[in-house]
Amino acid sequence: MNQTIENQLNHRSIRKFKDQSIPQDIVNALVDVARHTATSSFMQAYTIISITDKTIQQELSEIGKQPYIAQAGHLFVMCVDQHRNTLIAHEKGSDSLTMEYFDRFFTGATDAILAAQNIMVAAESLGLGGVFLGSILNNVAAVCALLKLPDGVAPVLGIALGYPDQSPQLKPRLPQQIMHFENTYPELSEISTSLKDYDSVVETYYDLRDSSKRIDTFTNQVSRNFKAIHPGRAQMLEFYRKQHLIEK
Amino acid sequence: MNQTIENQLNHRSIRKFKDQSIPQDIVNALVDVARHTATSSFMQAYTIISITDKTIQQELSEIGKQPYIAQAGHLFVMCVDQHRNTLIAHEKGSDSLTMEYFDRFFTGATDAILAAQNIMVAAESLGLGGVFLGSILNNVAAVCALLKLPDGVAPVLGIALGYPDQSPQLKPRLPQQIMHFENTYPELSEISTSLKDYDSVVETYYDLRDSSKRIDTFTNQVSRNFKAIHPGRAQMLEFYRKQHLIEK
Repeated sequence: MNQTIENQLNHRSIRKFKDQSIPQDIVNALVDVARHTATSSFMQAYTIISITDKTIQQELSEIGKQPYIAQAGHLFVMCVDQHRNTLIAHEKGSDSLTMEYFDRFFTGATDAILAAQNIMVAAESLGLGGVFLGSILNNVAAVCALLKLPDGVAPVLGIALGYPDQSPQLKPRLPQQIMHFENTYPELSEISTSLKDYDSVVETYYDLRDSSKRIDTFTNQVSRNFKAIHPGRAQMLEFYRKQHLIEK
Repeated sequence: MNQTIENQLNHRSIRKFKDQSIPQDIVNALVDVARHTATSSFMQAYTIISITDKTIQQELSEIGKQPYIAQAGHLFVMCVDQHRNTLIAHEKGSDSLTMEYFDRFFTGATDAILAAQNIMVAAESLGLGGVFLGSILNNVAAVCALLKLPDGVAPVLGIALGYPDQSPQLKPRLPQQIMHFENTYPELSEISTSLKDYDSVVETYYDLRDSSKRIDTFTNQVSRNFKAIHPGRAQMLEFYRKQHLIEK
């Protein structure tokens, strides 16, 4: 094993930060790491917005309903971007454009998400901590308005980074035998029973955790989570369509 | 800077591999790294399929129309997985399920893609090389049939890994000023002109590259790429719907 993998195996999401901004040279280095991530068909169909305006940061915190977004030492919003390439194609006289396909959205989103993980790995290697913010997708339309994203550009994931002010325990994950298969997907029978040991491990994790009193199992969380969907998340497809993405 | 970031800044996609499989303990370590990646709302809504059957590997190579897929030392297919959690919820008696929403697909896909980049970083830190395979999405329906993926499970990205048998040059990427903005998205005016220097750098890259005679600019590639879409990619949304994903 090596230091890189050791850090990866020790990943914790950090949601409490010291009141300290991340210096610009580190921000630039993280964006450089993002730039060097693999990109589908060399299209580089994503854009990174750094939030340095405290009012915007506060508004994103309210959209995501997570106070720690406002406390982050740096905030990135990773965006799918078909706008830049559409402009390029237009200037080159391309007349049959394909921006509206799901494929375009998904490959640009994949670029942005791969780059997001690369940023997280780099940040953690420097002793920073962070958490991904899916919560900014609670209202894609509001984020687009707030960041003045033009047609063809939309947020796909936020990243809150900073100097950690907590050291949470490692959260236990699904065992390999239930999420890593060979060649074909197997029959999963009586899955709750086969997850009984994992549920106990998750209960112990919550029991020992400092920051919350909740004691819960994995299967109970899944079951609860599947009962309902956030109203804004139920409109995600519609929100992306407003940005002229995923029209077919 | 440190070794982790140095490796990240030196990422090259590797498409030529030595005829040597990746040992099982390394495969398991890479899956462990994936397991420790951040996951949306702790749902862990993704599954990894390792392809060890040479016939299946060959068929994926034909779907992707990339001969190097068949030569990889190891092949991962990263899948969004709402099936496992749906089974759990059913066993717990949850009656109102929400698997069909775009949000569910997208958060599961995000889990899978973040884990994919973590695997790539770990593999490269061990001296392996690899390339992401968006090409397996040319025919999502065929991949689902081949890997016997049940409803709610579908591929989102492949990863071909192996012992590198080439050392390609570093591919130049868009400069920060055109893909990293502060707070709001700026007006991008005369973008082809502002990319003139970058186009020259890309031309020089292709000129010096051993493996191909093509000399091309970034803006020409974008323009060409936007003129048409692969017929299978034009059906991606329909293919995912066949797996009962993204129904609303």
